[in-house]
Amino acid sequence: MTGLLTQAEGDPVAIENADAKGPFVFVCEHASRRLPERLGTLGLSPEALESHIAWDPGALAVAKRLTEKLDGTLIHQRFSRLAYDCNRPPESDAATPAMSEVYEVPGNRTMSAAERQARVDELYLPFHDAVAQFVSDRKAAGRRPVLVTMHSFTPVYFGKPRAVEIGILHDADSRLADRMLAVATTGEVAYDIRRNEPYGPADGVTHSLIEYGIRYGLPNVMIEIRNDLIRDEVSQRVMADYLEGLLAKGVAALPAK
Amino acid sequence: MTGLLTQAEGDPVAIENADAKGPFVFVCEHASRRLPERLGTLGLSPEALESHIAWDPGALAVAKRLTEKLDGTLIHQRFSRLAYDCNRPPESDAATPAMSEVYEVPGNRTMSAAERQARVDELYLPFHDAVAQFVSDRKAAGRRPVLVTMHSFTPVYFGKPRAVEIGILHDADSRLADRMLAVATTGEVAYDIRRNEPYGPADGVTHSLIEYGIRYGLPNVMIEIRNDLIRDEVSQRVMADYLEGLLAKGVAALPAK
Repeated sequence: MTGLLTQAEGDPVAIENADAKGPFVFVCEHASRRLPERLGTLGLSPEALESHIAWDPGALAVAKRLTEKLDGTLIHQRFSRLAYDCNRPPESDAATPAMSEVYEVPGNRTMSAAERQARVDELYLPFHDAVAQFVSDRKAAGRRPVLVTMHSFTPVYFGKPRAVEIGILHDADSRLADRMLAVATTGEVAYDIRRNEPYGPADGVTHSLIEYGIRYGLPNVMIEIRNDLIRDEVSQRVMADYLEGLLAKGVAALPAK
Repeated sequence: MTGLLTQAEGDPVAIENADAKGPFVFVCEHASRRLPERLGTLGLSPEALESHIAWDPGALAVAKRLTEKLDGTLIHQRFSRLAYDCNRPPESDAATPAMSEVYEVPGNRTMSAAERQARVDELYLPFHDAVAQFVSDRKAAGRRPVLVTMHSFTPVYFGKPRAVEIGILHDADSRLADRMLAVATTGEVAYDIRRNEPYGPADGVTHSLIEYGIRYGLPNVMIEIRNDLIRDEVSQRVMADYLEGLLAKGVAALPAK
């Protein structure tokens, strides 16, 4: 017992539709802006605690819709990435950033080694083990899961507006990303979609792709949506409709194995 | 079923003394030079298949002795690192090297993606999961395991003799290594012992330390022994006696936590 989460706060990992018939496993590491009570505000202002540094606004809502539409499974973290960023390994300082974009995070700068390890033990490791176990069980059952991590990004970063609307990100395995990009840029082009933008492997954002996709030999992709495009239910639905087509066509275009 | 190991070949992972009372968890990724039958000789000569590129000669024997002496647990891989090097992640080409020191490994150069994935699935993932699960269970039981990975290195590398006799290796967490080096270099100095030699983190050799030690916040160290010092039973016993003292004193010097 390292004592970060209270019993009332419950499990850090939520799994929805575990018995899905479809191949898609959606992972949302930055689904929530909720902080474990024991961390207080980490010294942040209410504005910062609502902002994109605490979570990926809209990402969970779009992931939920895709999970339903494609009969996939969704695994998400129930606590803020400010407490622990589950898309970073424990050995990375970025997992508990002392600085995020323009915000200092005092509570992350001053924590003890024991507190940091408690965050690893109670937020990262259960999440990591849940996703790894899930894809491993699926493989053992003779299925081929497809890993899709769902993120959103801020339209203005360090004061600079971003033109890219959707990022299709990959690490060494670009099988699925290549096919989705081919679909997205053929015929009517609906969005400004780019490969490995606004982030890419060099920014350390492909941790989940490597851990749960590449290690298991699974098709995998990370989707980054500019968060002003998914601010409300209607726009989230529009985005999910679009991504549903892209994912389904992308997977259909993969070699039989 | 991806079909690399036959049923007769059995489990790729061996766990000895799982109910140990002591804190030490010895891990030996390069314990064996045995190749899965289906891989044949990988196109290598008998000489290469006996050499240090296939395994770490003597490492398992010393690890077994330490396991007994310190009432620790030992987890080792039963197949050669030429089939899959369990101290490397699947996304690294070094996990199935096409070239190892001066030897080409034809069977690793020509394998298909499916065969490579079978090696990951049947050699790496079960090993990874066994060690991760073991240390995780120990922690959950309120104990503090100490991770020690056991290796040996060739006295002559690319034609150059090596002076270092024992390497004490670490990545970002040097707590245990620092204390062992302090003990080793105080009073009578028995061996040429060096920090992060002949390899270090930049060579990618700290994968196991990171995966099973740092991620769980456990004291951890990698021991590299020059293999000419552990060629037979007597010399292995001498080395184990020495390392027993070093490990016990190193752990005793750690802060209570």
